[in-house]
Amino acid sequence: MRMKAAVLEEFARPLVVTDVELAEPKAGEVLVRLVACGVCHTDLYTASGVDPSGYAPTVLGHEGAGVVEALGPDVGSLAVGDHVVTLFSPQCRECEHCRSGRTNICLAIREQQNKGYLPDGTTRLSRDGEPIRHFMGTSTFAEYTVMPEIALAKVNPDAPLEAACLFACGLSTGLGAAIYTAGVRAGSTCVVFGAGMVGLGAVAGCRLQGAERIISIDLSDDRLQMARAQGATDTWQAGPDIVERIQAETRGFGADYTFEATGRVAVMRQAVEAARMGWGQCTVAGVAGRGETLDVIPRWLIQGRRVAGSSFGGVRGRDQVPELVERYLAGEIDVEPFISHRISLTEVNRAFELMEAQDGIRSVIQFG
Amino acid sequence: MRMKAAVLEEFARPLVVTDVELAEPKAGEVLVRLVACGVCHTDLYTASGVDPSGYAPTVLGHEGAGVVEALGPDVGSLAVGDHVVTLFSPQCRECEHCRSGRTNICLAIREQQNKGYLPDGTTRLSRDGEPIRHFMGTSTFAEYTVMPEIALAKVNPDAPLEAACLFACGLSTGLGAAIYTAGVRAGSTCVVFGAGMVGLGAVAGCRLQGAERIISIDLSDDRLQMARAQGATDTWQAGPDIVERIQAETRGFGADYTFEATGRVAVMRQAVEAARMGWGQCTVAGVAGRGETLDVIPRWLIQGRRVAGSSFGGVRGRDQVPELVERYLAGEIDVEPFISHRISLTEVNRAFELMEAQDGIRSVIQFG
Repeated sequence: MRMKAAVLEEFARPLVVTDVELAEPKAGEVLVRLVACGVCHTDLYTASGVDPSGYAPTVLGHEGAGVVEALGPDVGSLAVGDHVVTLFSPQCRECEHCRSGRTNICLAIREQQNKGYLPDGTTRLSRDGEPIRHFMGTSTFAEYTVMPEIALAKVNPDAPLEAACLFACGLSTGLGAAIYTAGVRAGSTCVVFGAGMVGLGAVAGCRLQGAERIISIDLSDDRLQMARAQGATDTWQAGPDIVERIQAETRGFGADYTFEATGRVAVMRQAVEAARMGWGQCTVAGVAGRGETLDVIPRWLIQGRRVAGSSFGGVRGRDQVPELVERYLAGEIDVEPFISHRISLTEVNRAFELMEAQDGIRSVIQFG
Repeated sequence: MRMKAAVLEEFARPLVVTDVELAEPKAGEVLVRLVACGVCHTDLYTASGVDPSGYAPTVLGHEGAGVVEALGPDVGSLAVGDHVVTLFSPQCRECEHCRSGRTNICLAIREQQNKGYLPDGTTRLSRDGEPIRHFMGTSTFAEYTVMPEIALAKVNPDAPLEAACLFACGLSTGLGAAIYTAGVRAGSTCVVFGAGMVGLGAVAGCRLQGAERIISIDLSDDRLQMARAQGATDTWQAGPDIVERIQAETRGFGADYTFEATGRVAVMRQAVEAARMGWGQCTVAGVAGRGETLDVIPRWLIQGRRVAGSSFGGVRGRDQVPELVERYLAGEIDVEPFISHRISLTEVNRAFELMEAQDGIRSVIQFG
């Protein structure tokens, strides 16, 4: 079939919205008609050419939600008409990692996905007979996508898809960092560095876990106000003396849990040092620039601090994205404030501009 | 009373074995006659003057074991004649940390101990009427010491004290890093960087936890041979390509658990990178030099690796040192090979020389 898609033709140039071909789903694959798709920093990161593993041409986009239109052979877990959230982090339930119960990083299709191919090593995307590689296994800046069923989370159809799509990446990453990776205990003191999509999600996750005190730190007053609406009890301007301030407000100990959601290594270091002596855990959710390192004074570790990273918030996509969407439907998570701009696919480059201007939290592409 | 003690008179100069005065134990304190004391890197570190928190004059030594000679008022948990191991890391069982069950870092006497005082802010050590400060709350390079009862672990009197003393620091730190801080799971692959006292203890700890594969890494063939005797299944020469080698032998994943027991930040970085994608945990037990940082590429964390520090191996001294000593008596831990030199107190400077020459694992001072 022919469809509109936003193609990264060349790094550091605007995406080109144009017609591309999408082939039928093969065995284990599903054709999804996209209804909504968030525009995330990772899309911009790859578009900019800074991502060392990036390639072009490709159809970007990974924060998608839509409706199942057709099934390839041997698809057992989905039916036409199901509402789905796309998962750049799949869950096959069969590989060593999925069976371990110790990580959400599924190995099933990892290698091919990283190269831009579907699991069989080919693409469904093409133009003039030339294959176009998929991006993150999702390529959701398009009217349709073909994806493996193990990379689709079936969600409650009562959930508006423009809200559901945020669970495909940023929101789940933040929520999951608090709920799954850190496993925040009730009554804890938490500090969240950064109040973008991931940081705001982490604030909400800390609240859902019953944290007593949630300190949100950012440079923007607007974002800090949003953090307060998500459950932050304290909102502080970022600054170089933030570690001392956190210690001063926690009897010199530091916070039970800290979360880094800016991707800046200097902030990661603050997040480590702001964690509590004895058992404080720092969860790094932000993605740092290439070649940058998080420099930790080992003494901070010896005193009982722990550092963990979180990919997709430790969320097991097919099992837990539907659960998070249920919590949204139950009124526990307020998604609406995150959707700052509703745009059409042709306006996708505008979404990148808004992102660079830090205007709003998420632009969501609405299809159709 | 008057007794012999090894006094650090001046940094970077030999200790002086001389007569000092030791006052009676006050409330909650105990007089211990030392029978054995290991000489540890931390003693040398302070003696060298490099430790920024060091002070002089002081009586060094912290890896002691002995017999209770007298009790101050209000001592409830010990009796004259009890065999005890000295704890630089006490366990009051009452402070916020001890009650938390989340850390072994007791807060009860921390502040005074760090300054060189017993809990009431005074010293029992003196010379010519001038107080001499205690070291690590222990000062066990001496015929006797006065310590708070919360800093003494009562151990089975069947255990030879020259073996028991190693549980006061190095051996417990290594064993505990594997048993308590990391909580190694049976069947795991473990890598231990460094085969000194702490590293060898970690190897033994991994074995006790039922690890399937234990790779010990060091520069010294002698030490690697000792690691094999403690349970290492593989012994490798240290080198710059060690991370690649570990990955190659673990199907590209890395080890379930890694332990850093050298104190070198470049090795710490290897230990982080050698930990398994998905759930690998790196436990840092070594003490780095002042101003040095462990530089971690955040991507390693995002892929599911965790980094934790371990102080005294996470061991709750009064509860768990006696348990570890029982395991030694039961034949589960072979302590004898660690005692490379038996010396008298007057030979304490010789122990520092042996340590700097990496001759043997531990010199143990025998008193009386």
